[in-house]
Amino acid sequence: MSKKQLLINAFNMNCVGHINHGLWTHPRDDSVDFNTLGYWTRLAATLERGLFDGLFIADIIGVYDVYQQSVDLTLKESIQLPVNDPLLLVPAMAAVTQHLGFGVTANLSYEPPYLFARRMSTLDHLTGGRAGWNIVTGYLDSGARAMGLPAMDAHDQRYERADDYLELLYKLWEGSWEDGAVRRDKAARIYADPARVHRVRHEGPFYRLDGYHLSEPSRQRTPVLFQAGASDRGQRFSARHAEGIFIAATDKAGTRKLVDSLRAQAVRAGRRAEDLKIFIGVSVVVGRTAHEAQQKFDEYWQYASAEAGLAHFASSTGVDFARYGPDDPIDYGNSNAIESAAQTAQASALTRRKLLERFRLGSRYPTLVGDAASVADELESWLEETGIDGINLTRTVTPESYEDFIELVIPELQQRGRFKTAYAEGSLRHKLFGDGDRLPARHVGASYRWG
Amino acid sequence: MSKKQLLINAFNMNCVGHINHGLWTHPRDDSVDFNTLGYWTRLAATLERGLFDGLFIADIIGVYDVYQQSVDLTLKESIQLPVNDPLLLVPAMAAVTQHLGFGVTANLSYEPPYLFARRMSTLDHLTGGRAGWNIVTGYLDSGARAMGLPAMDAHDQRYERADDYLELLYKLWEGSWEDGAVRRDKAARIYADPARVHRVRHEGPFYRLDGYHLSEPSRQRTPVLFQAGASDRGQRFSARHAEGIFIAATDKAGTRKLVDSLRAQAVRAGRRAEDLKIFIGVSVVVGRTAHEAQQKFDEYWQYASAEAGLAHFASSTGVDFARYGPDDPIDYGNSNAIESAAQTAQASALTRRKLLERFRLGSRYPTLVGDAASVADELESWLEETGIDGINLTRTVTPESYEDFIELVIPELQQRGRFKTAYAEGSLRHKLFGDGDRLPARHVGASYRWG
Repeated sequence: MSKKQLLINAFNMNCVGHINHGLWTHPRDDSVDFNTLGYWTRLAATLERGLFDGLFIADIIGVYDVYQQSVDLTLKESIQLPVNDPLLLVPAMAAVTQHLGFGVTANLSYEPPYLFARRMSTLDHLTGGRAGWNIVTGYLDSGARAMGLPAMDAHDQRYERADDYLELLYKLWEGSWEDGAVRRDKAARIYADPARVHRVRHEGPFYRLDGYHLSEPSRQRTPVLFQAGASDRGQRFSARHAEGIFIAATDKAGTRKLVDSLRAQAVRAGRRAEDLKIFIGVSVVVGRTAHEAQQKFDEYWQYASAEAGLAHFASSTGVDFARYGPDDPIDYGNSNAIESAAQTAQASALTRRKLLERFRLGSRYPTLVGDAASVADELESWLEETGIDGINLTRTVTPESYEDFIELVIPELQQRGRFKTAYAEGSLRHKLFGDGDRLPARHVGASYRWG
Repeated sequence: MSKKQLLINAFNMNCVGHINHGLWTHPRDDSVDFNTLGYWTRLAATLERGLFDGLFIADIIGVYDVYQQSVDLTLKESIQLPVNDPLLLVPAMAAVTQHLGFGVTANLSYEPPYLFARRMSTLDHLTGGRAGWNIVTGYLDSGARAMGLPAMDAHDQRYERADDYLELLYKLWEGSWEDGAVRRDKAARIYADPARVHRVRHEGPFYRLDGYHLSEPSRQRTPVLFQAGASDRGQRFSARHAEGIFIAATDKAGTRKLVDSLRAQAVRAGRRAEDLKIFIGVSVVVGRTAHEAQQKFDEYWQYASAEAGLAHFASSTGVDFARYGPDDPIDYGNSNAIESAAQTAQASALTRRKLLERFRLGSRYPTLVGDAASVADELESWLEETGIDGINLTRTVTPESYEDFIELVIPELQQRGRFKTAYAEGSLRHKLFGDGDRLPARHVGASYRWG
């Protein structure tokens, strides 16, 4: 029996500083060119050369204004601000690639569902079935205020809203146009058969709709659904809807437990354990030798910004760490995120000093530094010991961190039978699951199909 | 003094049947490929080869369900249904062109302004300053219902909303980030200078906002603003905001009056007459001889659908013409659009038979059929006699109608000094007005600049 192969997405964002903050100042880093098309089309071509499964594009609506109760550091270090629309990058990248998938983050709390449904259908058409959606509901008060709302919905309320939103979308994507509705028959003068196109009505607790989906069915209909919610309610949402789940890995044992729990929840929701592809974030600094890798890491370190990493984390948790002295114990308050961070750091009493150490470089995710063999060893170990399916590879110094990975780690993984040597044909969903372009019949979305 | 040159946009839509309905059934028409990237990148390359100033992309939210109180014909003939998102086409087309401008329609009644502001800034970044926005407020009840709303806002109310929306956008585009705010200084570790980035607050009658613009300033900041409202209230809006105005030309005398009135209104609003570039829709069927052109027109005619044209017009006016016998006089009711159509058709008593004759091919706009010299004569005549600045060229059979125009009409216009022989450098705004990338100081948007 062949070994389980690793799925590899690049993890990026339409901004300068994404995860490993401060590295934009590195002389060889070109992320300050993120405003240009060429930056993205070159990236896409690079990733497809490396047989990456996909490019996962994060997004945020709002700004990080918790640390020092200000956006000053956010602007100076460009901590996900400015941040441009992610969706608009994809058509240009699709034009220079054939296989690379695209997982694009969009916040359903703010995007009107009828327009969003069309946007994703359009993207799936233009990419020939390579579109994925990373479903987020937002968490920043600054985002809600910018949208003209008094405040964020409460956490669980956001997921109630999300369930309603998804139901509306399934009706449009799966139910409005039957297979075979589009005939394109010039001789008969029938583009679409009216008997097979259906008006959708939806009266949910949050959303209403009475109309036809504006787009004919795209290759995948529903884009591949990604999600990253870690809370109990978020996991329940994932178990029902998600096909790809992005989790924040702590240690391997904890990750194993979470992976098992997620798959068990999916099974309880009427799906199969393997209907979930689970990804962890990973940073990699690789060299031809362990020494070279360490030298590279040390060099990157000079440009990294621990304080920027901490400011980012402050908004994730809602705690202004600047209010604490360097060695004061930090009050978790009601923040699950901090508690989880404390577990991650394996420190029962977090201090600002400890957090700064942690957030300098390779902060949030496992960071692998070494030669190709040792990086591959560690990736295999994660794959085997935790039950994950793949990684979202962060960038450090870009584009060289992608190029190093492709030059050194990909061939090593291929030699070990842990990574494909050519793309499979088909849509993103088919490439991931090998079972056709569409949602499987046991997925909740399939129940909204006509007939 | 050199002659006034004609501006030429292609007029298109992310759909099969746009203006000249039924021609999708022509054997050489490839508009059924509109779902693919290649269709659009080939079009963009063709237009840039022809030195077209821009591609103007229409859009509609909703379906045409007035004629026969049904969408049956709309689906069969693909009358702007399916219709995909227009914005997503632009990045791919921008990647294969350097100069072509893009005027993209978006409906402000439905797009949340904070997200829309970022989307357009992203587009302006990715295109290097070639983004334009055709401002629409929607008119279809089916669109409002699909958006979950009980009904459309009243007409003038939509423009009140639009004024508020634009004010909010100007604050983001012009006021949030000062020039010079973005330093990209790696050595000093300053991406952006916090002292020059400003939080925007807006409390309007329709919209609220408290936040920073998520995008740094793009080349044009505010995209070039297009508008097409023909009502008094729509003209008042144009006089204040629009830089490009798209009008439905009837006869030349009527167009002259409208053009003069629009420019006078702009002057009364503190702008200059030449701050408006005014475009009319035109269809062209050109041959190497008049005879060849007429043959081509007659051949196209076989594939055109008068009934589809009428169904489209039924939704524009809200009148179900199918309820009338072929020679019954049609009751205008309160429809300004029908009254205007009656004037256009120069028929005081419109009947369905008359409308069907009119809507077979080259329905809505002046349709020029002839050799290059006669088409150029007519275009020169429109330019000279009406005071317009340019045309939005519809497609008939695509792509050959664009290719014919480029092969035959463009060189004729160039020989007459009526069309440029090379692109100017600069942004879309600079190409159109020759006065820099940004809104002129006398435009209302400029008043929202910082300081």
